[in-house]
This record gives sequence, C-alpha cells and structure tokens, in this order.
Amino acid sequence: MSDAVVERLALIGAGLIGSSIARAAREFNAAHSIVIYDAAPDVRARVREIGIADVVEDDIADAVKTADLVIICTPVGVCGEVAKQIAPHLKPGAIISDVGSVKGAVVAQVVPHLSAQVHFVPAHPIAGTEFSGPDAGFATLFCNRWCILTPPANADADAVARLDDFWTRIGAKVERMSPAHHDKVLALTSHLPHLIAYNIVGTADDFGEQTRSEVIKFSASGFRDFTRIASSDPTMWRDIFLNNREAVLEMLGRFNEDLSALQKMIRLNDGDALFEFFTRTRAIRRSIIEQGQDTSAPDFGRRDKEPKA
Amino acid sequence: MSDAVVERLALIGAGLIGSSIARAAREFNAAHSIVIYDAAPDVRARVREIGIADVVEDDIADAVKTADLVIICTPVGVCGEVAKQIAPHLKPGAIISDVGSVKGAVVAQVVPHLSAQVHFVPAHPIAGTEFSGPDAGFATLFCNRWCILTPPANADADAVARLDDFWTRIGAKVERMSPAHHDKVLALTSHLPHLIAYNIVGTADDFGEQTRSEVIKFSASGFRDFTRIASSDPTMWRDIFLNNREAVLEMLGRFNEDLSALQKMIRLNDGDALFEFFTRTRAIRRSIIEQGQDTSAPDFGRRDKEPKA
Repeated sequence: MSDAVVERLALIGAGLIGSSIARAAREFNAAHSIVIYDAAPDVRARVREIGIADVVEDDIADAVKTADLVIICTPVGVCGEVAKQIAPHLKPGAIISDVGSVKGAVVAQVVPHLSAQVHFVPAHPIAGTEFSGPDAGFATLFCNRWCILTPPANADADAVARLDDFWTRIGAKVERMSPAHHDKVLALTSHLPHLIAYNIVGTADDFGEQTRSEVIKFSASGFRDFTRIASSDPTMWRDIFLNNREAVLEMLGRFNEDLSALQKMIRLNDGDALFEFFTRTRAIRRSIIEQGQDTSAPDFGRRDKEPKA
Repeated sequence: MSDAVVERLALIGAGLIGSSIARAAREFNAAHSIVIYDAAPDVRARVREIGIADVVEDDIADAVKTADLVIICTPVGVCGEVAKQIAPHLKPGAIISDVGSVKGAVVAQVVPHLSAQVHFVPAHPIAGTEFSGPDAGFATLFCNRWCILTPPANADADAVARLDDFWTRIGAKVERMSPAHHDKVLALTSHLPHLIAYNIVGTADDFGEQTRSEVIKFSASGFRDFTRIASSDPTMWRDIFLNNREAVLEMLGRFNEDLSALQKMIRLNDGDALFEFFTRTRAIRRSIIEQGQDTSAPDFGRRDKEPKA
C-alpha cells in the first residue's frame, strides 16, 4: 500500500460530505489518522457508533491542534465562524480547506481569521446525493467526480499540490480556477437548477389536496426528477443562495428572459420556433454523454422504475 | 398461457411507444397478431428487420381493415389526420385508441372523423424514456406505470373494459378520468417540467463556447438531470405544447409567480423564508417515495455515476 497523503486529517462537520471524506480517506489510505468534530452532539455520538474516524473530539480546538490537513465540511454560512474558532489552535504549516459550493464568499469569510503560518486552499468536490447526515456518506462518492480548487494567487505551491494529491487519492479529478469563475459556472450548472427544482415542487405544493395527491401519483411523467433535486438539505441550499446571490440572480435573469420567449412561442402557436428550440437543446445532452458525464442507457440500470411522459 | 386480449392489433406509428406496445403485446400475449404501419418507409424497413410485428403494411388502409384494436402511436399533432385516413377502412365494432400526452385536443381532432360503428377510447400510458424510434422500445416499458383512459360519457362499456384489460395485460395500472382533468394534471406533472428543463438547457446554450464546455464538464452538479429531460423528441413536445396550450400557460403563470417570490427572498437575503420553502418541498419527495413511485436509494443503482452538488 502507498503512503498516506497526509499524516493527520481533521474534518469539521460529519454530514454527507464530511463522513464520505472520512470513509474515503481510510479506504484509499489518504490520511494516516482521522479526527472528526461536529457541532451536534448526536452527530458525534453517531460517528463514534459507526466508527468512521480514529478519534471523535468534543472540542473543536482539540480536533485541529495536531492536524496537517483541516477540511471544513459545514454549510457555507458557518465557514467563517468555524475559521474563527479553529484559527488560534492550528499547527503552523497546516493546510486548511473546505468543501463549499460557493467559493468567493467562503474566501471572504475565512481568510481574515487565518494567520500567515497556515495555508488556505479552498475546494469544492462536485459530488453528493439528496441525502444528509453521517449515515448518508460512502467511500466512493468522489470517484470520477470533479473537485475544483480555487487557490489564491500567492498560495503555497506545495500545499496546493498536497491537497490536489489528497483529492486524487480518494478518486476525484482535480481542476483549478478562480473563485469568481467557479461561482459563475456553478450558478448555472448547479444553483439555478436547484432553485428551479425547488420552485416547481413548491408550485405543485400550493394546489389543493386532491391535485397534490395526483401530482405524487403521476410524478413519473417528469416531475419526479425535480423532487429528487428539491429534497436536498435546506440549510446547505439556503446558505448557497445567500452566499452566491449575485451570480444566481444574474443566471435567473437570463433564465426568465428565455422562459418569456418560450411562453410567447406557445401563446402564438409558433410550432417551428418550438421545434427549433427543442432540437437545439438535444445537442447539449449528446455532448454530456460523449464526455462520459452520464450514461445513455435508457434506464440507468433501473428499467422497472423509469419515468417520463 | 391465457388467451390474447384482442385478436388483431394494429399500431399506427412505430416509435418508442408503438414499438414498445408491439413488443409487450407479443411478450405478454395481449394480441393474437400484430400489424404495424408507419408513415416513414425507413421505419417500416427497420420494423421488418427487427421482427416485432407479424405484418408490416405499406398502406395504412390495409393495416387497419381487419384490426379489432387500432392504437394511434403518432405525435399528438397528426392524430386527427391519421383518424381521417383510417376511418373509411375500420372494421365495425373495432376499438380505436391512442397514446397521446394530451387528451382534450386529441378527442376534438379524432372524433369528427369516426363513425358510430367504432369505439373511440383515448388513452395515455405514462411511460417513456428520452429516446425515440423503433429500436428504443422494450417490452417492459409499461410495467407498473400508469395508463390513463379518458372514455367519453357515452362510451361502450365493453370496449372500455377491453382496452383496460389490454393495458393491464402488458403491465400497466389503469386509471380513468376526464380529458380536461387529465390535461390539467399532466400540465403540472409533465409538460411544465419539460418546458422548464428545455428552457434551462437553452439558457446554458446561449453562453459562449468556453462556458458551454464547462457547463457540460460540470453538469453532474444538477444540470445534467435537466438535459436528460430536455433531450426528448422535439416533434412530440412541440405538439404537446401546442395542443395543451391553455393548461400549460396557466401552470407556467403560477410557476412564474412563485419564482418571483423566491427571487425576492434571495435579493432581500431572507434566509428564514428560503429555509422554510426548501423544507416544505422535501415533504413532497417523501410522499413520492412512500407511494413507491421512486426509490430512495442514493444511487439508483449507478453509484459511480451519481451527480449533484
């Protein structure tokens, strides 16, 4: 077996992502020892039960004081507070990272608390499911998924390379970009789709009981896929929208312009324009399948479950 | 083996749905013999090659003249024209049906052409994939999926029961409702989700080449699920929106109202309102899983492919 990438890994937060990193780091020998802290006592108790860490600390300072790599795995909204709590206890030379779906706001909140003796390298693994908590994680969550690093211009090259090695070891493909560019791309590929999914499920929820039960009954016709996206963790998503507000509102503005145009095509019975639009969107799907980001199998291995209209 | 439900089945159109009905009718002994007509010569040639029908007719009149059950499996927009073509050749007592995702407009277009000697019972199997054509079909497509019948008030009870038996035999669960109610429920569960998915993929397509390639690369963060929905057959969906215009525009109006409210929550930094909204939508997802309309497995059996942010 190859050497571990880091000697001692500390994870702050043991939800879906934190608990998956713990499992993956052990499975793929990315860390020699793993310590977990979570603000919720019941989560700490559960992590002790399922045994995915070498040590579970009840005090956040104790969790980080000997760590070589500290990864903040909390909702984006509390990253700054966590940084403030851990900063006085960090080991000189330690690498500090996170897993937030927003990077600009995280950098702005975390950097002021950290000394020049530690290396902050923000990261965002693009992986997850709609489930939450320490039991939802699994070791292969990051396999073949992208992890985007957004190191500052003056970042320590060795620290960045070490973090790159860590994510590569647990199966991810690593990419680097600026926080602002990350936030724009993710606003379009992730934050806007989630907002739309939440919204359409909310629209259905506003109907009366009879219609709502029929919506659930006939959800396989398209609606169902939206409900899965819209069942993701509410705290995580509240924080994402509040912390990537400008990019999300810009994408939403573009989306609304396009939707008005589609609405008008329907209202004016413009079949040619609708056909042209629906043909154009097919090409993007083909590119995604060609690049191996999804399977073209009609059933995703769940033929007896397959939906759509 | 039990007796076939109908003696001779004619399918007009051999796309995903028509070719799946042919395969299912043979596999589950729902028809003693199966004849297929498709307006496209290359589709007819392909159907002959793959051997999913007993007879492939080059003339639509020949296809229907001895059939006990004729199912129109074309896009919604041409159902009226097909009815006009087959009407003079139908056998007295034959059952005529369809598979359209819109029912009110289909009834309005088909009924004027049919004589009182045949029985028109519209149907909509809520099943499909994003793929098209005779090779895309499979025999189990309708298993455990709903099929909604919308028989007119004066429908022949035996004919309705026979069609119910046919769909039950090939695995579907049958429900009955009025065309208008069907069109309202499907506008919300299927047509609006498809419109939104097409729209968001279109928004991404409007960006420049660099952003577009990044959208494809990082599509697993949520966007990917929309591209699958938005790759469905353009002709079919053009016809659905043109033929269920009023219900779709009404649902779109409600959707837009709700989206404006969400947009305002983000703009005003109203974290409590966002959290409350995102929590409410989770409950609908739970109901869908409880009613067996989807699996709660985090990976749908495709763990190494799983996306999301």
